[in-house]
Amino acid sequence: MYQNASSFVTTPIALLTDFGLSDSYVGVMKGVIAGLAPGVVCIDISHEIQPQDIAGAAWVLASSYRYFPPRTIFVCVVDPGVGSQREPVALHAGEWFFVGPNNGLFSYILQEQAVHEAVVLANSAYHLSHVSMTFQGRDIFAPVAAFLARAVPLADLGPAIQASALQQLNIALPFMQDEAISAQVVHVDRFGNLITNIPVLLVADLFSYSVVRLSFSHTGVVVNARRRFFAETTGRPEDDQLPFLYVDSSGYIGAALQNGSAASVLGIAVGEPCSLLLVL
Amino acid sequence: MYQNASSFVTTPIALLTDFGLSDSYVGVMKGVIAGLAPGVVCIDISHEIQPQDIAGAAWVLASSYRYFPPRTIFVCVVDPGVGSQREPVALHAGEWFFVGPNNGLFSYILQEQAVHEAVVLANSAYHLSHVSMTFQGRDIFAPVAAFLARAVPLADLGPAIQASALQQLNIALPFMQDEAISAQVVHVDRFGNLITNIPVLLVADLFSYSVVRLSFSHTGVVVNARRRFFAETTGRPEDDQLPFLYVDSSGYIGAALQNGSAASVLGIAVGEPCSLLLVL
Amino acid sequence: MYQNASSFVTTPIALLTDFGLSDSYVGVMKGVIAGLAPGVVCIDISHEIQPQDIAGAAWVLASSYRYFPPRTIFVCVVDPGVGSQREPVALHAGEWFFVGPNNGLFSYILQEQAVHEAVVLANSAYHLSHVSMTFQGRDIFAPVAAFLARAVPLADLGPAIQASALQQLNIALPFMQDEAISAQVVHVDRFGNLITNIPVLLVADLFSYSVVRLSFSHTGVVVNARRRFFAETTGRPEDDQLPFLYVDSSGYIGAALQNGSAASVLGIAVGEPCSLLLVL
Repeated sequence: MYQNASSFVTTPIALLTDFGLSDSYVGVMKGVIAGLAPGVVCIDISHEIQPQDIAGAAWVLASSYRYFPPRTIFVCVVDPGVGSQREPVALHAGEWFFVGPNNGLFSYILQEQAVHEAVVLANSAYHLSHVSMTFQGRDIFAPVAAFLARAVPLADLGPAIQASALQQLNIALPFMQDEAISAQVVHVDRFGNLITNIPVLLVADLFSYSVVRLSFSHTGVVVNARRRFFAETTGRPEDDQLPFLYVDSSGYIGAALQNGSAASVLGIAVGEPCSLLLVL
Repeated sequence: MYQNASSFVTTPIALLTDFGLSDSYVGVMKGVIAGLAPGVVCIDISHEIQPQDIAGAAWVLASSYRYFPPRTIFVCVVDPGVGSQREPVALHAGEWFFVGPNNGLFSYILQEQAVHEAVVLANSAYHLSHVSMTFQGRDIFAPVAAFLARAVPLADLGPAIQASALQQLNIALPFMQDEAISAQVVHVDRFGNLITNIPVLLVADLFSYSVVRLSFSHTGVVVNARRRFFAETTGRPEDDQLPFLYVDSSGYIGAALQNGSAASVLGIAVGEPCSLLLVL
Repeated sequence: MYQNASSFVTTPIALLTDFGLSDSYVGVMKGVIAGLAPGVVCIDISHEIQPQDIAGAAWVLASSYRYFPPRTIFVCVVDPGVGSQREPVALHAGEWFFVGPNNGLFSYILQEQAVHEAVVLANSAYHLSHVSMTFQGRDIFAPVAAFLARAVPLADLGPAIQASALQQLNIALPFMQDEAISAQVVHVDRFGNLITNIPVLLVADLFSYSVVRLSFSHTGVVVNARRRFFAETTGRPEDDQLPFLYVDSSGYIGAALQNGSAASVLGIAVGEPCSLLLVL
């Protein structure tokens, strides 16, 4: 039975890296955490971010953090600048904590949430005793996350840093151009679904328009079918093989193919510009 | 030291999906669970089921569930019909709980275990407040599993559904034909071991026969060596490179190659028909 | 809040195998553990060791175990001899416990740590009731690890085995030859970083020499730049694309390429011999 959880359970630590799962890097970070905060639950968001792809990791974090409980500590390590002058930081933004290099990983968080406090991780008392120049996920970020889980105050970890000094990526935002929304593909998921940077809030109801058309100008590809869910059918068999627009679970407009990969069939990858025409 | 475990530990939640590990889908489900049932242990069975491969997931579940403790909650999401009329369900079968879409994922469970109770997950009080049409693993199945871990009764989750209304795949069963067992390959594992749907119970002792021969009629391939374990040798070096029959740890007859992939060398994949001749 | 952790938390179980993540093998081991030691935290080191690569797994274990807390139980299963006469063993070495086949997986541990006690896992009371010939990770090693987590003494698990009877791989050690260190590549990580078997202790400060040069004689490739961290620059753009020597976080000398794969660009794989010239 499930009783008195609050007396022994802490909030989880969520991990997002480009370390992959072949090497021991992720396991070692969890080993460090287990030693400093035994019993804390670690949750993997993804470790298959493309090496050094800060923007990709920032998007994955943006699409997932709201589903974690308040006080979750997100440790994000996509860190090509490890060992350089880029600062290791921790921030309390919205209801969550974020730990990682100050290199743009938290760009969407900074846009979407109020930053209550942010610090540079300069206090070596909360790091491993030897800090390497090439794996600070192990030597700085994991131990800092463990100490945060043990309720060490942010201010103990190092001096404050202004929110304005936190790096922000130049994130592409959709904009109106010639009566269409000019946008781009920001993520391709495991199923080959293409996810754009057009928030569904901008479109409201995809089914309220007489025409919807997503065009990829580089390749001439056009998607103008739409579905509420992947298996929705028109009853016409010839429609079943067509790619279609849908509202992705991330809250953005996507393009998919039932039981297939829209990315492969359409030949579209992350970064591809596109244009969404909506006619009432 | 390990004391009084029962006072704070619940049964685990085991996860089986086709979500892969590149995206945040699995992590987000665990984030939802961590918020609703903090401290519950989540165990990954696999997230590398081929996209939309319900039959493959059903087999992986069948080969693993008996090794989990009683009351384990299995959350299985291979769900090409997400958002359609297919019902989200939860069942109590044998000593375990199963949560997922009613699309055949639980076929082997239904054959092997008594269903004590089954419900359609219609009570939105146990879902996230917004349920998407494309990711009900996050919006319905994860929260329901968390509430089950908190000992919410099945009956609270929605109306009963008859066991006979639970979808069953048309699972290929082996049968006798011309004095041989007609069967098929149902799984190829990471090592390239070919696992058939012939339960070892049907064969009893593979070593009690004078001749055993597994034939793949499509390709003309024949395997007629046999071993008790992968490294067993006859003492003849020329035998070491031969594929052989063995009793797989799943309880089914398999074909393997020592330190190599039988699937690659023999050119055999899942679904391939085969025939096992046994001569006393 | 984080209180009284010691009253309910045990040390973690860390898992290292060649089982991959597509099949249910790892999940099943965790299911067995969850049944016997509910609430124990399992940490994955890696399951993507190449099939049957005992030496590769031994290295990954060596580079990671020191970062886990004292009393961590390492379960290591790369076991091509499963079911044969090779003994299943458990050892207490240094501050940790190690469980797995006696096939060389623990070679570095035996070199680096004092073995306090070692036993053959012959006592079937601590195994699953049916032990297969092909998956003893599930049937022997997982339950034994769970019982160790429950503080069962090593001596209960089976008879003692002499440390000298524990298998050791013939691990290549670097040696001086013609005023250079003769060595080899022992690991290539996810980023394509080449890690040699030259401990940084042998070199002291890579930056104290007037010349450093790592040569791969088979291919004629030479690396003679050096960096303290991946993003370090000389200020000369033509240097940015050059591979360089660095101190890897494992404590060994490595060769890397900024934002790229040294392994791919140089055409070097695990096992490649190399020679490090150091001129003061």
